[in-house]
Amino acid sequence: MATTNEHLKEAFAGESQANQKYQAFAKQAEKDGFTNIAKLFRTTAEAERIHAEGHLKALDLIATTADNLQSAIDGETYEYEEMYPPMLDQALNDNHKAKTMFKFAVDAEEVHAQIYSKALEAVKAGKDLDVSDFYLCPVCGYIELGSAPEQCPICGAKKKAFVQIA
Amino acid sequence: MATTNEHLKEAFAGESQANQKYQAFAKQAEKDGFTNIAKLFRTTAEAERIHAEGHLKALDLIATTADNLQSAIDGETYEYEEMYPPMLDQALNDNHKAKTMFKFAVDAEEVHAQIYSKALEAVKAGKDLDVSDFYLCPVCGYIELGSAPEQCPICGAKKKAFVQIA
Ligand SMILES: [Fe+2]
Ligand SMILES: [Fe+2]
Ligand SMILES: [Fe+2]
Ligand SMILES: [Fe+2]
Ligand SMILES: [Fe+2]
Ligand SMILES: [Fe+2]
Repeated sequence: MATTNEHLKEAFAGESQANQKYQAFAKQAEKDGFTNIAKLFRTTAEAERIHAEGHLKALDLIATTADNLQSAIDGETYEYEEMYPPMLDQALNDNHKAKTMFKFAVDAEEVHAQIYSKALEAVKAGKDLDVSDFYLCPVCGYIELGSAPEQCPICGAKKKAFVQIA
Repeated sequence: MATTNEHLKEAFAGESQANQKYQAFAKQAEKDGFTNIAKLFRTTAEAERIHAEGHLKALDLIATTADNLQSAIDGETYEYEEMYPPMLDQALNDNHKAKTMFKFAVDAEEVHAQIYSKALEAVKAGKDLDVSDFYLCPVCGYIELGSAPEQCPICGAKKKAFVQIA
């Protein structure tokens, strides 16, 4: 029989995915001209985020920032070293459209791990990261510190496409 | 060997959960006084959302709004009828702190399913939902249409706690 800890992991996975689906469904509803239903999807997405956060807290998976950064580095490293490479190989073999985002992700996760490592060094020295501007490529998830690059080194998107998250 | 479709499901699950973790880690970083690291977590959360959305598209899981609503109703129904009840029973038995959010979620998902059903009726009649104000309880995920209730029927939160999502 599953333990409550195993249940929490399953419920966290379910709520996290529902949150993402509803955000995507909201965009589709806007496209289809259903403005109110789009808002309903966004509101319900936020409800699932609340459930996911509650389960994460009950799992005691939110720790100090230093520990959270180490957990983030471990997750990113697993993704770019172990998870994505065989997925990408197979999608290339199949010539499946999944290959595009698998390639973007495997490259972006390595960059994420590097930036989180810098942040962890700062925290270990008792400081915040000394950069406050992060430029995100909305096509592939690449992040650059300080200023946007002329062109995204992963997907080639132009400087003006880059966004900052508040 | 796993198929690319199975890989996409695994990658979507991983990205969705990374997105939620980074959002929670961002809040913790703010609490710990690391403002820039909090922003980095929020930016990386958005990068993972982009990866998750790409995988969802490659899975062909974003359909018409009518089909998306049916998929949402099916997911909510599975959660409140099958997934959460045994989780809640066991957490109550264990007196595990998970019991609180399991109870909130099982009740909220039933309400979500009902509201999505109303939305699906409207779409089937060729219309948008005739409500544009959705009030969300930020404690339990309950949603009320039109105006906020005096008290949340699930968790008891007061009217003034309710929020609207843009
Ligand atoms: Fe939920
Ligand atoms: Fe990442
Ligand atoms: Fe890019
Ligand atoms: Fe990712
Ligand atoms: Fe729900
Ligand atoms: Fe509530």
